Amino acid sequence: MSLEAIQYRRGSLSILNQLLLPDQLRYEPVDGVERAWEAIRAMEVRGAPAIALVGCLSLALELAAGAGPVGDVAALEAFVGERLRFLLTARPTAVNLGREGQRLRDFMRRRAQSPGVTAEELRESIIEHIEGLLEKDREDNRRIGAHGARHILQRVPEGGVTLLTHCNTGTLATAGYGTALGIVRALHAQGRLARVFCTETRPYNQGGRLTALELLHERIPATLIADSAAAAAMRDRGVQAVVVGADRVAANGDTANKIGTYQLAVAARHHGIPFYVAAPSSSCDPALPGGADIPIEERPGRELTHLQGLRLAAPGIDVWNPAFDVTPHDLITGGIVTEHGVFAPGELRRALGERGAAGGQ
Amino acid sequence: MSLEAIQYRRGSLSILNQLLLPDQLRYEPVDGVERAWEAIRAMEVRGAPAIALVGCLSLALELAAGAGPVGDVAALEAFVGERLRFLLTARPTAVNLGREGQRLRDFMRRRAQSPGVTAEELRESIIEHIEGLLEKDREDNRRIGAHGARHILQRVPEGGVTLLTHCNTGTLATAGYGTALGIVRALHAQGRLARVFCTETRPYNQGGRLTALELLHERIPATLIADSAAAAAMRDRGVQAVVVGADRVAANGDTANKIGTYQLAVAARHHGIPFYVAAPSSSCDPALPGGADIPIEERPGRELTHLQGLRLAAPGIDVWNPAFDVTPHDLITGGIVTEHGVFAPGELRRALGERGAAGGQ
Repeated sequence: MSLEAIQYRRGSLSILNQLLLPDQLRYEPVDGVERAWEAIRAMEVRGAPAIALVGCLSLALELAAGAGPVGDVAALEAFVGERLRFLLTARPTAVNLGREGQRLRDFMRRRAQSPGVTAEELRESIIEHIEGLLEKDREDNRRIGAHGARHILQRVPEGGVTLLTHCNTGTLATAGYGTALGIVRALHAQGRLARVFCTETRPYNQGGRLTALELLHERIPATLIADSAAAAAMRDRGVQAVVVGADRVAANGDTANKIGTYQLAVAARHHGIPFYVAAPSSSCDPALPGGADIPIEERPGRELTHLQGLRLAAPGIDVWNPAFDVTPHDLITGGIVTEHGVFAPGELRRALGERGAAGGQ
Repeated sequence: MSLEAIQYRRGSLSILNQLLLPDQLRYEPVDGVERAWEAIRAMEVRGAPAIALVGCLSLALELAAGAGPVGDVAALEAFVGERLRFLLTARPTAVNLGREGQRLRDFMRRRAQSPGVTAEELRESIIEHIEGLLEKDREDNRRIGAHGARHILQRVPEGGVTLLTHCNTGTLATAGYGTALGIVRALHAQGRLARVFCTETRPYNQGGRLTALELLHERIPATLIADSAAAAAMRDRGVQAVVVGADRVAANGDTANKIGTYQLAVAARHHGIPFYVAAPSSSCDPALPGGADIPIEERPGRELTHLQGLRLAAPGIDVWNPAFDVTPHDLITGGIVTEHGVFAPGELRRALGERGAAGGQ
């Protein structure tokens, strides 16, 4: 049984408060959109897919409880749109919530235009649409895991593979299974994982607190390293591939992900080790031509200078604390692993564009 | 006035307990070799030059207090040799203590062979030799700072320079002024430093705790970053040179330094930014052909998983915690900055060998 970031059934939403991990496993109720906004902002829940899910589910919860206008289709649409816009202000870099919000608006528009649809029917179908996202995310991640594992094993015909990953991209960042950690899980399930090195991931320590916890929980062989030991691990500890997640992938394949991802990609290139970005297609944003257009959230310096009230750095020092960095597409040498397959960055636009045109999803 | 790692006058040695920084500025007495061994092992004092000085000074202290055999030159020599061997077991990677110990033995041997020298004269001259090391280290560092600053400014004809440094190589790591931080200080004194980025330097946080403290103390413009933000700072924040220290430099220029140095060198190469190693010639070990021969200390995993009793990582996770890594000489693109000048790695052996042959120092 995996650790779950999100527990949902109609009328009830709880999240595992990730600020308390690994010390406490505490699920906290989320009673609506305001509380979800706070939880996302404070990083009680994090990971681009999980952020999108908690945001949307908090809205489903409000709708199921009768929030918003009654009896007026257009007013209900406007209410949902306003709630989505508010949610989006919690963290600017993650695109998934924006994309899911846009899809929800498109869906709502089509439903609202169905002949004779009532406001209550519209409300119910919005709730069902959102509830479907949870299962879709889990399925997408299993596909990402399978595609990524197969691609990596093409270069490693036999024996165990040693991977390196960054931040947390597992069950705690998604509805389940994980993106980059989904690839780790898939290789482990096939008996082909030798070991995964996970970086501590300062300043929020997602690797040490969350990834290490998930991997221990499922008895996957894992070793924690300082972020700055990654290049040494690549050279001296036999790392064969690097797998990371993504907060946002631009049309040309440039990828925004947790600070440090760029540095890992540079090190992987130096060592000739393939570098993979694992992300559901909902993290890919064809409207953004390249990485320079991705807004990068800068977070408070206190995240680096303090830890649970403990002072880690000289008081008064200036801090630069970007939450993300952009890895240019030419360093993503393994490929971008989506639920539809593994694509070279240059193939991404066409691959996802065709599917978007064909399937509307 | 700089913060000083070491306070010494004959009969009295104190060290600033660096485990307590930045919260407490507490000097603690070191009453002899055993206490110095403990302080070095526990990293109350760290930095290759400071380790060598505290080790040797603790021996001078014992000798001044009358420790060891009296009246027998050969027995005194043997006693000093045994104390030096013991000190060397505290931390295996730093070469300076070994080199200073060897020089002290050579000096002792010459003095012991002087006609008619008494054991008490030998004892006094050993103490004086050790006391001279403090001033020599400060002078060497000023020379390193001047040579490094001049070399960097050759590429930057005007305006301020933006540097990036790792770990702590300042007054807290040396007898004073610092090695890589000596270069920073020299540029600042010339009005040519725009800003220095200092990495946090996990797991021991020397950058955030010590370097940030030193730089604030002297009002040098500095910005703290996570270790994993270094490549992003090089690309997005205009870093023009990287300057680091060294725990040990092999004859071919391969350099062992704080874990993460190799990763910075790889990133600097990727960005075409010159990478400098600043080290007194006593950190250079001509007896070691290359980096593969440098022993790398692996420290307890607990340094990464706990901080002052606070748990930072999932309990039970396996940890790889090398204290150092080796940067191959071909990545040291700026040069190796010693008190004798800046040398390309390939010139080092000849440059220091000639001086060694000529000056015996």
